Amino acid sequence: MSAPNRATLWGRVLADELAKGGLEAVCIAPGSRSTPLTVAFAEHPEIDVYSHLDERSAAYFALGRARRTGEPTALVCTSGTAAANFHPAVMEADQARVPLLVLTADRPPELRDSGANQTVDQVKLYGDAVRWYTELPEPEADERKVRSLRTTAARALAETTGVQPGPVHLNCPFRKPLEPIDVPGDVPDSFTETTAATGRDGPFVETTGGAQTLAGDDHRRLLKALETAARPLIVAGPADPTALPSLEPSAVTDLADRLGAPILADPLSGLRYGPHVGRTDGDANARRTVYGGYDAYVDALPTPDVVLRIGASPTSKRLSHWLRDADARQFLFDPAGAWREATFTATDLLAAEPGAVVDGLLEAIAEREHADSATPPSVDDEWRARFAAAERRHWAIRDEALAADALASEPFEGAILASTIVNAPDPATVFVSNSMPIRDADRFGRPRTADLTVLANRGASGIDGIASTALGAGSATDDPLVLVTGDLAFYHDSNGLLAVDRCDVDATIVLLDNDGGGIFHKLPIEEFDPPFTDQFKTPHGLEFEALGDMYGLEFERVAPVDFAAAYRRSLESPGTQVLAVAFDSEPSHRRREALDARVTSAVEDIVDESD
Amino acid sequence: MSAPNRATLWGRVLADELAKGGLEAVCIAPGSRSTPLTVAFAEHPEIDVYSHLDERSAAYFALGRARRTGEPTALVCTSGTAAANFHPAVMEADQARVPLLVLTADRPPELRDSGANQTVDQVKLYGDAVRWYTELPEPEADERKVRSLRTTAARALAETTGVQPGPVHLNCPFRKPLEPIDVPGDVPDSFTETTAATGRDGPFVETTGGAQTLAGDDHRRLLKALETAARPLIVAGPADPTALPSLEPSAVTDLADRLGAPILADPLSGLRYGPHVGRTDGDANARRTVYGGYDAYVDALPTPDVVLRIGASPTSKRLSHWLRDADARQFLFDPAGAWREATFTATDLLAAEPGAVVDGLLEAIAEREHADSATPPSVDDEWRARFAAAERRHWAIRDEALAADALASEPFEGAILASTIVNAPDPATVFVSNSMPIRDADRFGRPRTADLTVLANRGASGIDGIASTALGAGSATDDPLVLVTGDLAFYHDSNGLLAVDRCDVDATIVLLDNDGGGIFHKLPIEEFDPPFTDQFKTPHGLEFEALGDMYGLEFERVAPVDFAAAYRRSLESPGTQVLAVAFDSEPSHRRREALDARVTSAVEDIVDESD
Repeated sequence: MSAPNRATLWGRVLADELAKGGLEAVCIAPGSRSTPLTVAFAEHPEIDVYSHLDERSAAYFALGRARRTGEPTALVCTSGTAAANFHPAVMEADQARVPLLVLTADRPPELRDSGANQTVDQVKLYGDAVRWYTELPEPEADERKVRSLRTTAARALAETTGVQPGPVHLNCPFRKPLEPIDVPGDVPDSFTETTAATGRDGPFVETTGGAQTLAGDDHRRLLKALETAARPLIVAGPADPTALPSLEPSAVTDLADRLGAPILADPLSGLRYGPHVGRTDGDANARRTVYGGYDAYVDALPTPDVVLRIGASPTSKRLSHWLRDADARQFLFDPAGAWREATFTATDLLAAEPGAVVDGLLEAIAEREHADSATPPSVDDEWRARFAAAERRHWAIRDEALAADALASEPFEGAILASTIVNAPDPATVFVSNSMPIRDADRFGRPRTADLTVLANRGASGIDGIASTALGAGSATDDPLVLVTGDLAFYHDSNGLLAVDRCDVDATIVLLDNDGGGIFHKLPIEEFDPPFTDQFKTPHGLEFEALGDMYGLEFERVAPVDFAAAYRRSLESPGTQVLAVAFDSEPSHRRREALDARVTSAVEDIVDESD
Repeated sequence: MSAPNRATLWGRVLADELAKGGLEAVCIAPGSRSTPLTVAFAEHPEIDVYSHLDERSAAYFALGRARRTGEPTALVCTSGTAAANFHPAVMEADQARVPLLVLTADRPPELRDSGANQTVDQVKLYGDAVRWYTELPEPEADERKVRSLRTTAARALAETTGVQPGPVHLNCPFRKPLEPIDVPGDVPDSFTETTAATGRDGPFVETTGGAQTLAGDDHRRLLKALETAARPLIVAGPADPTALPSLEPSAVTDLADRLGAPILADPLSGLRYGPHVGRTDGDANARRTVYGGYDAYVDALPTPDVVLRIGASPTSKRLSHWLRDADARQFLFDPAGAWREATFTATDLLAAEPGAVVDGLLEAIAEREHADSATPPSVDDEWRARFAAAERRHWAIRDEALAADALASEPFEGAILASTIVNAPDPATVFVSNSMPIRDADRFGRPRTADLTVLANRGASGIDGIASTALGAGSATDDPLVLVTGDLAFYHDSNGLLAVDRCDVDATIVLLDNDGGGIFHKLPIEEFDPPFTDQFKTPHGLEFEALGDMYGLEFERVAPVDFAAAYRRSLESPGTQVLAVAFDSEPSHRRREALDARVTSAVEDIVDESD
């Protein structure tokens, strides 16, 4: 590894080591102080560089890519406010456990707090939101320093995907010259052949991460609790990006079948979509295992007595409240041993990988069956059948509401989410904005056997960075990409649309345009106007066609009844289309409430009938 | 002060106390958790509410308003990433000493780190970038708590404008109900008449801020050093927003005249524009006191032996380097006693208000003259004359370059800045973006007697939030508003343009469109392509007309030779116009270099002639 000067050496060693550690992509915003990093990444043959002009969008793009792949993505910016623009995405990466490696260029230490231009305090800039913060030493062709640099690079990557994955921040001071200008003697020839300079064939330090697993006795104890339950339940909340590969969906459905437990699968759980969903279709009435419509009906059903909870808190508030009021024994799995349960009703925390626990339980079942072939005795006969019946009625009512006539007279936003999911190609990545779209995807996005990767930013649940996160996710695979967004989120990250062209990502963007914050119709503030309209609903009258012109997107206004056809056309077309579907949020919300009441009453019948 | 529940009470008391303390404006982004604050501000008759949909833009708008007025402006957002979107502007407010009061709504304490939705760690979110951080106690109609709330409000305002003005962060936890819904017993009638609830007629605590001043002996000692100088100089860097009212420009020019010192006035110093500039026009050759063209010529002149430095580090890097190499005695004034001098050549720090020091020096002069009427003996005869001559030649060369013929054949970006300043109405607020525009304003913005308030974000010098800061500044006065921005900054804060309509601000926006980062042509990286074009210059080909359509702006493409006329038309028209002037940054930069060489050679003549 040779270099014309120490700053260039620093950038090259860092890029070299990160590539050897498996880093495949970096998002870079232009700047001067970061030149040594930018130059090194740009010249590295094995790292894809995505150039962004707004650091906030850059960070969300990197977040989306890392979320989709479960692999670390790096970020580079210059010194100053650029680094603060990364903060929202770093916060989301923290909460959602997304492996993000943030490299902020900085001025040399002596310029801090000196009044120097574009020099701010970047030390621990993101506070406790990162898994690890450190500052690189000042560049120098020194054996120990360069070994430390390689070790730091290896460690930084490992920390992003450790027991609790998340963001890592390396602050990187550089002094001039920043460009690859020859500085005689700065990097002696004798240095370029050292192990520090060349690194090793693979990573300088090969990291093998452990995983938390329970002991056999723990599994047997847990199984006993589950098998003595009359109404066992599995709740799968949003999955951690790095956890999905280790959790085999069919193992979860196997377990559920053995226990007689329904699986309530969040759209973000990795369990609502995929071939495992259809496994029991032949006996669909009683044995269907994966349920997706529970947000519409769950609180009309009897409560569980034992619950296995996988993943983060579910999107459905109704589900959370129902579980809170169940007074059940709740086993919460968390691979990092964190306490993600905001209703404080969990009774047992299992600090272990969900995949390992599921496998351990299946083994414990096999063991028991080998010794004693009795089937689990205690499950209430009606338990799964009621979920199956409720699920059927919910989707039947939804299907009626989706019929062309109904939709023409009573359009509602949930219909678009329903159609987006049911008509998504197999496979596809579907990214859903926060606020109403994710709630409607939760309620109206029916389970399918198709391989849909449904994603959202549910760590901190902001409406910022939505387009960028989606496009970042889309950049990581060849799957068709669908983004469903509201108008406020679309406006908020309009800058992110530049990545369609600059980063060459094709998408179908479904824009639910209700001219403001439709979600506030769900809240009591609706009754107080003013300030409801001006400060909460905030109608803006924006004509989003202009953003189509600005960023080279095909923009089409679509009526709700024509949406499905336009959506299918878009999915078959190259380029990026925006399908804008206008709604009046107030009647749309009222329609949602009316459907809700119909489902509730239909499900109450089920319980009455079977009593 | 009555309220239907404790959360509403909390919001109302806070808004009441802030208004009594003088707060006049708040920028609010919609959200649910912040409802008690939003409702209270919206219903308060004495506080102007500016509604924004992107928190990053909201924060920069508030920053701009506070920067223009020197008075605190408040900011409100909901919990989660919204608060992180404020971070870039908080960072700028810290560095540029802008009084910003940040109110972030938060979930109740027990939900932190619990996996609850939209709940992040907001404690000390902005690290050391704020002057004061505290968290409000949980709302309750409790006498001591509410007194503490009023005291905290008074203190928060005072901290924003203390010895070192800057941002203050109050984290505000609220639990439901957040809306003004009646909760019987929550705020007892007996409580509503207490002093805690009603507050006082004025602020609950009237704060009288002190100011740092030097003793008489210090002024005499300082005067002696100045009066024994052969080549005394006053350098006025960017002014702190709250410092300007205390610094009387004519006092500075008086002092300069008495000392025989030229004033090198940064465009952001508050000293380059105003009636004081013309005071000595009758004897313009030798006695002109305020110089503005020094960035073009200063290093061709002899160096000073004693320097008085007011304000932050100057925009001109050439000036900074010349001072660094002068080996002069440098007196640095700073009202907060901070050490804002990044070349480490200052010899004396005076922790005092510049206005007070200037007045003290004038008094010391009067005292001395009263006792002993000898004039200061030591100033070099040629000293000011050389500045005057250099200044004349610089502007003459610039004027030639601005002539229609020259401009048609050799357009350059600096010509637009020159015209923007020289043709700005009197009075006007002119906001200049970072990167090239502020550098060109520094070099080509000729001193005028007009009352121009020239502003930029020179704390952290980012290119983010530029439109919002300008529009915020414009919202504070009836002065015509001019914004000069490059294309990257215009793209970066395109969301900020929504404030033109939503916040009803008229502006003339001068868009220097060189399709990417023209400033990188100034740097050695220009020689390394790749990665120069893709990663630094970053041409984007954006058609900014679309933003005009999006945000209801009149968009006009203007040739450099036609700019002055279009600019004057825009200033006379209502509404907001964007005047887009396209440049090829490479020849524009070469033209700048050629002018530079001409000025340098013309100024070298002055020194030769007078030797």
